[in-house]
Amino acid sequence: MRIEELDTPALVINLDALEENLKRYHGYFEKHGIGFRPHIKTHKTLAVAHMQLKYGAIGLTCQKLGEAEVLAAGGIQTDLLVPYNVMGARKLDRLTALAKRLPVTLAPDSEFTVRGLSEATASEGVSIGILIEVEMGFERTGVPTPREATELAKLVHDLPGLELRGFMGFPTPPDSRPIIQETIDLFDRAGLPRDVVSGGGTPHALDAHEIPELTEYRAGEYPVGGAMHLAEGRHTLEQCALRVITTVVSRPTRERMFLDAGSKALSASIYKTERGDSMGHIVEYPDALIGIASEEHGHVDISRCAVKPEIGERVQVLPVHPCPCVNEHDVMVAARNGMVEATWPVHARGRIR
Amino acid sequence: MRIEELDTPALVINLDALEENLKRYHGYFEKHGIGFRPHIKTHKTLAVAHMQLKYGAIGLTCQKLGEAEVLAAGGIQTDLLVPYNVMGARKLDRLTALAKRLPVTLAPDSEFTVRGLSEATASEGVSIGILIEVEMGFERTGVPTPREATELAKLVHDLPGLELRGFMGFPTPPDSRPIIQETIDLFDRAGLPRDVVSGGGTPHALDAHEIPELTEYRAGEYPVGGAMHLAEGRHTLEQCALRVITTVVSRPTRERMFLDAGSKALSASIYKTERGDSMGHIVEYPDALIGIASEEHGHVDISRCAVKPEIGERVQVLPVHPCPCVNEHDVMVAARNGMVEATWPVHARGRIR
Repeated sequence: MRIEELDTPALVINLDALEENLKRYHGYFEKHGIGFRPHIKTHKTLAVAHMQLKYGAIGLTCQKLGEAEVLAAGGIQTDLLVPYNVMGARKLDRLTALAKRLPVTLAPDSEFTVRGLSEATASEGVSIGILIEVEMGFERTGVPTPREATELAKLVHDLPGLELRGFMGFPTPPDSRPIIQETIDLFDRAGLPRDVVSGGGTPHALDAHEIPELTEYRAGEYPVGGAMHLAEGRHTLEQCALRVITTVVSRPTRERMFLDAGSKALSASIYKTERGDSMGHIVEYPDALIGIASEEHGHVDISRCAVKPEIGERVQVLPVHPCPCVNEHDVMVAARNGMVEATWPVHARGRIR
Repeated sequence: MRIEELDTPALVINLDALEENLKRYHGYFEKHGIGFRPHIKTHKTLAVAHMQLKYGAIGLTCQKLGEAEVLAAGGIQTDLLVPYNVMGARKLDRLTALAKRLPVTLAPDSEFTVRGLSEATASEGVSIGILIEVEMGFERTGVPTPREATELAKLVHDLPGLELRGFMGFPTPPDSRPIIQETIDLFDRAGLPRDVVSGGGTPHALDAHEIPELTEYRAGEYPVGGAMHLAEGRHTLEQCALRVITTVVSRPTRERMFLDAGSKALSASIYKTERGDSMGHIVEYPDALIGIASEEHGHVDISRCAVKPEIGERVQVLPVHPCPCVNEHDVMVAARNGMVEATWPVHARGRIR
């Protein structure tokens, strides 16, 4: 079947672009001797997870236990990093069950989380790895300072059921190196193991060698790119593998048109541009601006387009953030040279717990 | 089971609040003699659709064919309004199949859509109702002027397979009355049927009587409210029936904390407040601001909270827009007085085609 025959809106991944991105990024990490542990949160599909391992990933990262369970049930046999504060009786039960099947490492940032993990794993007779999450100055999760992170690491080192493996941060642009170096120094002075020093984030993935202390790196969006990566020059248009195919269903005036892809197909994520909020980049009409998306319509300003799209015409949209866009879809169509090669279930869609 | 035993994040609907909202809004329309045709796009569940009919709805509205198919397959026997420009061979096939089972009315805004609908329905020997969508001055879909809308209505009136029933607009606040009156006048002069004059939108639902020309009204969010409705005084906190139950999983400093509900549980929708973007209202900590949501974390500024939430604590979040929030969830837990009464599949989730 040709892509043109797919009903719209449809999420399509270009296999040539996907494979080129995998080759490029995995090749970079191999060249620099940094272990690459891709995040599956962007594609959420078993097919791509298996490809990432085939291209040399040392393991995988996922953000919620539910995603890890999908991988384990889908034939993935590797060690998993779940950089989350897993807590509560139900999730701890699921965690210990998972840890009996695959090596699992978590990344807590508080004594509360750590004590819960230790009690659950010790009582079940399993062990999980721990990376302390250290905050890199972006006001995200993570222990706020290297000194406090080291204190939490000491506690982990002393508690049963937990194996301290090192620490991680997110994101880790080159200028986060001093925080990483300070943490290493404090770990070393305290005699704490730190086999793993893990950085993350697609925007600075190809700068990872500028922090030679990193032993591992995590990235999620690199296989597919997206409107922000295009705008910031990290992916060319051809390297942006993920597109929502959509139809112009209304064009009331020469200034505005409506696509049959709204927030339920693109996600409600916004990318701020100099012309205002954008909810995606239209490949065929780069001067058009999807400024608003109601649930079932993309609202597009076409006033700057010299040639105006016609009702019934199909266009391709690069999502702003590929991760939440993929999460809106039950399936992803894999295509090459305009032909459908496979229809992949988005297995980990909606795994919020 | 008590709500406190649900694993988080979880989408919960309070049945007392739901029933009170249904009673209040359906009672209003009954009192004013306006037919009420609720939109199912907010709740997306068969259980609530059946309740809306029980509370006196004259029919239902849904936004995509896929939603209409879910209703038809779920025992709903009423006439459906699908205010969308349905086009393309595959969707037209599905439309004519649906029209053989239930009375269906569409709301096109272009000759392109209308001719496609006529060809498909006439060739299958079925008839569908048509409301012309007229633009109400909000730069949305709809024929831009009453005069052009009347021209399109004449075409519909002449084409086989289509039954012109009137026109609709969205949204229809009281000051849209002149556009509605002008359209009625033009329809009447052209001798066109207009049994249905349909307005829509929860924000002005209880003002519908200020446009006495309206014969029908559509609203989606009224059964559940949400953070915007609370802020704008339409729903009290108690009337906001839909909440995401979530756990504080990280609190690195006294200024910020992180919930286990991010865009995958709340949606990426933003509500602009005087303090900046908000992605939901925390019931227990109204001074907290969920300013950002990554996929699995709500990032919360708690600097203004006199009492600080603790790690492990559970809080309730009112979503900004209930519709995209519900679309992130596979199930909705129905509760009363803190006890779970039912777990409802979100049957129409993800029906983007």
